[in-house]
Amino acid sequence: MTLLRYARRAAVVPVPAAPEPDGMISFGSGDAYPERLPDLGDLAHLAASRFRTETMQYAPRLWIGELREWIAGYLAADGIRVTADRVIVVNGAKHGLDLACKLFVEPRDSVVVTSPTYMSALGIFRGWEVEYLEIGQDGEGMRVDELAERLGELERAGRPLPKLVYDVPEFHNPTGVTVSAPRRRALVALAQRYGLMIVEDDPYRRIRFEGAPVAPMQSVDESGCVIGLGTFAKLVAPGLRVGWVVATPEIVGRMAALKSDGGSCPLTQRLVLEYCRAGRLEPHIRDVVKTYAGHRDIMLAALARHLPGARCVVPQGGYYLWLRLPDGIDADRLAVAAARRGVRVLPASQFYATAGPATHVRLAYSYASASEIAEGVRRLAQALEEAR
Amino acid sequence: MTLLRYARRAAVVPVPAAPEPDGMISFGSGDAYPERLPDLGDLAHLAASRFRTETMQYAPRLWIGELREWIAGYLAADGIRVTADRVIVVNGAKHGLDLACKLFVEPRDSVVVTSPTYMSALGIFRGWEVEYLEIGQDGEGMRVDELAERLGELERAGRPLPKLVYDVPEFHNPTGVTVSAPRRRALVALAQRYGLMIVEDDPYRRIRFEGAPVAPMQSVDESGCVIGLGTFAKLVAPGLRVGWVVATPEIVGRMAALKSDGGSCPLTQRLVLEYCRAGRLEPHIRDVVKTYAGHRDIMLAALARHLPGARCVVPQGGYYLWLRLPDGIDADRLAVAAARRGVRVLPASQFYATAGPATHVRLAYSYASASEIAEGVRRLAQALEEAR
Repeated sequence: MTLLRYARRAAVVPVPAAPEPDGMISFGSGDAYPERLPDLGDLAHLAASRFRTETMQYAPRLWIGELREWIAGYLAADGIRVTADRVIVVNGAKHGLDLACKLFVEPRDSVVVTSPTYMSALGIFRGWEVEYLEIGQDGEGMRVDELAERLGELERAGRPLPKLVYDVPEFHNPTGVTVSAPRRRALVALAQRYGLMIVEDDPYRRIRFEGAPVAPMQSVDESGCVIGLGTFAKLVAPGLRVGWVVATPEIVGRMAALKSDGGSCPLTQRLVLEYCRAGRLEPHIRDVVKTYAGHRDIMLAALARHLPGARCVVPQGGYYLWLRLPDGIDADRLAVAAARRGVRVLPASQFYATAGPATHVRLAYSYASASEIAEGVRRLAQALEEAR
Repeated sequence: MTLLRYARRAAVVPVPAAPEPDGMISFGSGDAYPERLPDLGDLAHLAASRFRTETMQYAPRLWIGELREWIAGYLAADGIRVTADRVIVVNGAKHGLDLACKLFVEPRDSVVVTSPTYMSALGIFRGWEVEYLEIGQDGEGMRVDELAERLGELERAGRPLPKLVYDVPEFHNPTGVTVSAPRRRALVALAQRYGLMIVEDDPYRRIRFEGAPVAPMQSVDESGCVIGLGTFAKLVAPGLRVGWVVATPEIVGRMAALKSDGGSCPLTQRLVLEYCRAGRLEPHIRDVVKTYAGHRDIMLAALARHLPGARCVVPQGGYYLWLRLPDGIDADRLAVAAARRGVRVLPASQFYATAGPATHVRLAYSYASASEIAEGVRRLAQALEEAR
């Protein structure tokens, strides 16, 4: 009752507390494969005990230089040449996106997103009451020509330009597409010309099974218009909630001022740092890549067998298949039928800022085991028959 | 350059990266006494290793029932009778305040704060571009009669009412005052009458050296108008970044939807839960209370010796002394002179939403050791002579 007197944000839908029912196979969220979660017991002990005057105390807002320096060094391999003062440690990449919104976006400002785009980014944008400028995608990623046209129209009409461009350029979530190098350069040039900020969300870069990575937009930008988001969630473990933002020192300093929690958790940061320093990151990434490549192949094989009418572009990395359903199948109805059959998939509707065709579902192959993937696809095929 | 085209929040002052110089004695922020930081090595190992399928994975937004149930049970001792569905785990109490703002406050809405009030709450409010309704304090806490008068004036003038009332009722930060029981009841009645939400920030409740605690406002409210904030920062360790919000299930569910990081870190939550379940919380609180009571007494003795012209109300708990300076001493100038002499104190100006008299400094006795407290007060007295 009291709540209704209040803000527009009272319209935010409460999160239900209900857990997944037993026996549900999850192709839903991009959780890590449980067997590939590292055992960090020894380093957690070290971080909590030997380092306790650091890890049990309040942390500086930007955190101590050591992890920031490590991250700056790590990024150099991707061609991003930054010093530690351009890095801020945050509670995962989504926290970084939230801070970018808090710093740059006012209610009713618009942001550029691909259509479809990452559903959790949409959840964050919704909290900031943004409007959307939705841009199509093809096999090379965001249609930058379409964006250029739309920006030109807005400029000629004297209408406000968008504030941010959000994209997941490497193994796009949900489509799995990687933005080509020419498109990236074109997007950076466009952002520079119109004074837009690009948020480059890049969690899957190292989860590459084949092919060569494309240089990050941040590596080809000299102007500071790219805000890079990174995370240890896909590199080490999601539960650590340690990510980073790379931007100009000016932006990074202001984001630090806007962090409501003061410094992020020093215990998990120290844990991650010691893990990386111990040389355990690279072997772990190799294991993870091998595991997820295997999962992808098992899912593709199961789809070929049970769902020959569905199609997808084979992703060269990342966590997801973006499955084009046979004609006449509605993704929302399929997702409901699939849940009833004991397999969780996310329908296309969750990935559109406003609206889009109900022609796809996203299947995460990261979390489920090989046998669950096979069984889950079988259930999905049954649900599809039901949803016809 | 790009930044200047943007939002009002670009005016947020960047956080400087500079650490404290060596040898600085800190009476500044409310950090824990390093010797009282618990060694959680064994439980960190347990949480990261045995519980790793839970602690390394994404956590549910409200977190699993167990810690929420533990918190609900813990609050029962204070007369707050709630079920776990009224609890959400967050990254410290400040994160809870930020979520309350995100849910309830629009730019230019006003919030009620005491004058002075907690500086970090002001930092969070600033990020939300609120206006303030500042209310005085006396020995019984917030002047609820003054608030009633101001609300009546606004109502009669047909002007918008504030959205939130923020207070630290138990060992107020910075003044150390505890709000009396009649005032608490009056404030709850006022909030109910005008449809305001009260944010009851209660981190210091268990850090009581003498006297009897006053029942929380949330324990005397039946209407759901109180949002309670709690934290393990002062109970166990600040570095864990684990706190909670208690509110109606409707509010808690919406806050969960607005959490940008998804679920908070499951590793630190499991660690805290196992710590509490192992029966280590209560003995630790007893140690901490004894330590801080001793620190307070040492600081009071040193002040009596070196700064007989300064006065303060002796706090019965918490972390801070709110020191009234001798007439003619400007708190801002004193803080600068003190830092030069090697002791960090926070001037009154940091605790006023708009402006207030420069007559006080806040001294935290939590962090410094006994000998540092004595030496720090000596340096402060020298600085005071300099600032005359």
